[in-house]
Amino acid sequence: MTTFKTSITELFNIEYPIIQAGMVWVSGWKLASAVSNYGGLGLIGSGSMKADLLRYHINNCFSATDKPFGVNIPLLRDDAEELINVTIEEGVKIVFTSAGNPKTFIEKLKKNNMTVVHVVPSVKFGLKAEKVGYDAVVGEGVEAGGHNGADEITTMALIPQLVDALKIPVIAAGGIADGRGILAALSLGAEGAQLGTRFAATIESSAHPNYKLKIVKASDSDTVLAFKKIGLVRMLKNDFAVKAVEAETKGWNRDQLKELLGNKREMRGIFEGNEEEGEFEAGQSSGLIKEIISVELLMKKLLKELDEANSRNQKAIIN
Amino acid sequence: MTTFKTSITELFNIEYPIIQAGMVWVSGWKLASAVSNYGGLGLIGSGSMKADLLRYHINNCFSATDKPFGVNIPLLRDDAEELINVTIEEGVKIVFTSAGNPKTFIEKLKKNNMTVVHVVPSVKFGLKAEKVGYDAVVGEGVEAGGHNGADEITTMALIPQLVDALKIPVIAAGGIADGRGILAALSLGAEGAQLGTRFAATIESSAHPNYKLKIVKASDSDTVLAFKKIGLVRMLKNDFAVKAVEAETKGWNRDQLKELLGNKREMRGIFEGNEEEGEFEAGQSSGLIKEIISVELLMKKLLKELDEANSRNQKAIIN
Repeated sequence: MTTFKTSITELFNIEYPIIQAGMVWVSGWKLASAVSNYGGLGLIGSGSMKADLLRYHINNCFSATDKPFGVNIPLLRDDAEELINVTIEEGVKIVFTSAGNPKTFIEKLKKNNMTVVHVVPSVKFGLKAEKVGYDAVVGEGVEAGGHNGADEITTMALIPQLVDALKIPVIAAGGIADGRGILAALSLGAEGAQLGTRFAATIESSAHPNYKLKIVKASDSDTVLAFKKIGLVRMLKNDFAVKAVEAETKGWNRDQLKELLGNKREMRGIFEGNEEEGEFEAGQSSGLIKEIISVELLMKKLLKELDEANSRNQKAIIN
Repeated sequence: MTTFKTSITELFNIEYPIIQAGMVWVSGWKLASAVSNYGGLGLIGSGSMKADLLRYHINNCFSATDKPFGVNIPLLRDDAEELINVTIEEGVKIVFTSAGNPKTFIEKLKKNNMTVVHVVPSVKFGLKAEKVGYDAVVGEGVEAGGHNGADEITTMALIPQLVDALKIPVIAAGGIADGRGILAALSLGAEGAQLGTRFAATIESSAHPNYKLKIVKASDSDTVLAFKKIGLVRMLKNDFAVKAVEAETKGWNRDQLKELLGNKREMRGIFEGNEEEGEFEAGQSSGLIKEIISVELLMKKLLKELDEANSRNQKAIIN
C-alpha cells in the first residue's frame, strides 16, 4: 500500500498528493466528496454556483465525507465575496482562488484560519500570491482546460521555474491525467498534482454525458486555444470552437469576439451537452482518457500507474 | 556513479539518456563531440549548413570523439538528399530527421544501416514515422524553441499519448533544461530526453554571445509563438518578435507575414546576435538557464539534479 508524504499532503492532511480541480458545471459535492473519501483533495467548483447553491453543496459535502475538502472561488466574480462568506460560514477550511487579484480577500481568509491556495500561470503571479500570504500555489500550464494565462507557459516549463522562485509549495496542473503525469509533476519539484479533465470524465462528475463522451473520444490534437484578446480558453473542437479559431485568424477585434462568445457557453456545452453551440472546456490530456469510471477506481488506477512509473525509473537509473 | 539503461541508451550505445538537439547556428562539431564525449548523444545540426560544411563538421567530430554522434537533417531542405548522402558517405550511423515527410528517404537510410529518429509534434505523425520504419521518435512539445507543430501540443500531454500509441521508443523534447525535467520525461514513459536551449547556452555552442546572454536573462514569460499561418516558431522576445505577434493579432495574411519574416532571420539572431532584426529561437525553458557553462559541467549538473529529484520522489512515496 503506497502512501505519500509531501508538504501538500501535510498542508491539507490528505493521503495522496492528488487534487481534483474545481470546475464549473462539473465538481459539485458528489465529485468533491468522492475524491476526498478516497484520499485526495476534492474541490467544489463555485464558478457555476450562486451563493445559496454553494451553501447546499458544502452542506451535502460535509454529510458525504469527514475528510478535508475545499472550495474553488473565481475572484473575478461580482459576488466573489458572497461566495467566500458562505464558505467561511459553513466551516470549510480550504479555499482555492483563481482568475483575479490574490490580494483582494486574503486578509479576510487568513483571519478565518483558512488554508489558501491561488492558481497561477507564471512566476510573476506566483510571487504575488506568495507575497500577500497564500499557503501554496497551483502552477497551471497552458495545456489545461478552461481559462489560461496570456503567456501560454506549459506545465513542463512552468513548474520548475515556480519551484525555484517560491518558498511556498507548488501544485502542478495542466496535461496531467494519469499516474505517470503525477510522478512527472513530483519530479519537476511540485509537491502535488491537480487533475481537472480526468475527474470531469468520472461517474461522479455532474457534467453532461455528451461532454464526458467527447473527452473520451478526443485525440491529442482535439483541443484548441481561443479568445486570446478577451480571455484565453482551451476547449474541445466543435463547430463553435472552430468558428472562434477562424475569427482569431481573421483578426477580429474584442467586440466582435465578445459577440461571438455570447453568454453561458460553458453551461451550454458542459452542462447541457449542446454539441454545436456549447463550449466544452477540456485539456490536452483528454487524449489520455479512454473510459468513464468511478472516482474509487480512478484513484486506485492513478496510484498503480504512479507506482509502475516509479519502478520503471528505478530500473532505468542504476546507482 | 549513476548510469542508465533504457531502450534509448541501448539503441545509441550511450551512457546517459540525454540527447543534444540539432540546432541551426548552434550545434557544430564542437558542441556535438563534447556532448558525446561526456556520455550523451551529440547531434550536428545541418539545418544551417551546405553539404560541404556538413562534411567538414562530421570529419572534425570524428577527430574529436570516438563516441557515437548523429546528424540532424531538416527534410524540407531542397538539398536534403545531398545532406543525407554526405552523412552516409562520411560514416555517421545516426540520423535525426525533422520538418518533412518521414517516408521520402527512409529506404535509403535503412539500406545504409542507419539508426533513424524522426521529430514529431503529435501522435498522428508519430504513427506515420513508426509505420515507415523509423527506430524511434522525438516527441517535441510546443514549449520547445524553433519550429513547432500546428496543433501546439505540450510535452506533458504529448509524451504519454505517444508512448501509449507507439511500439518504438519515444524521446521527450520541449521545456526540459535540467535533471528534474529529464526525470519527468522518464516518468511520462519516455526512454530519453532531448535538450535544445540548455545546450545552446553552453561554452561549446557556436551561437553568438548575445544570443546566449539573452537566454540567460530570459524569464518564463519571455518567449513568444508566432507565424502560425506560415510555420509556427518559438523565439525570445525582441523588437522583431513583438512585431510578428502584433501582425498576427491584426490578422495579416500569409504574404504579408512572409514579407515581415524575410530571409535568414535565425542567422541574424542566433549567429550574428542582431538584437533588433534577428530571430532568437529558444524554448520556454530559457527561464531555467542562469549560466553559460561547459558541456562537461552541464552533464554533471544534469545527472546530479536528476539523482536529487529521484531521491526526493522516493522520500515522498512510501511503500
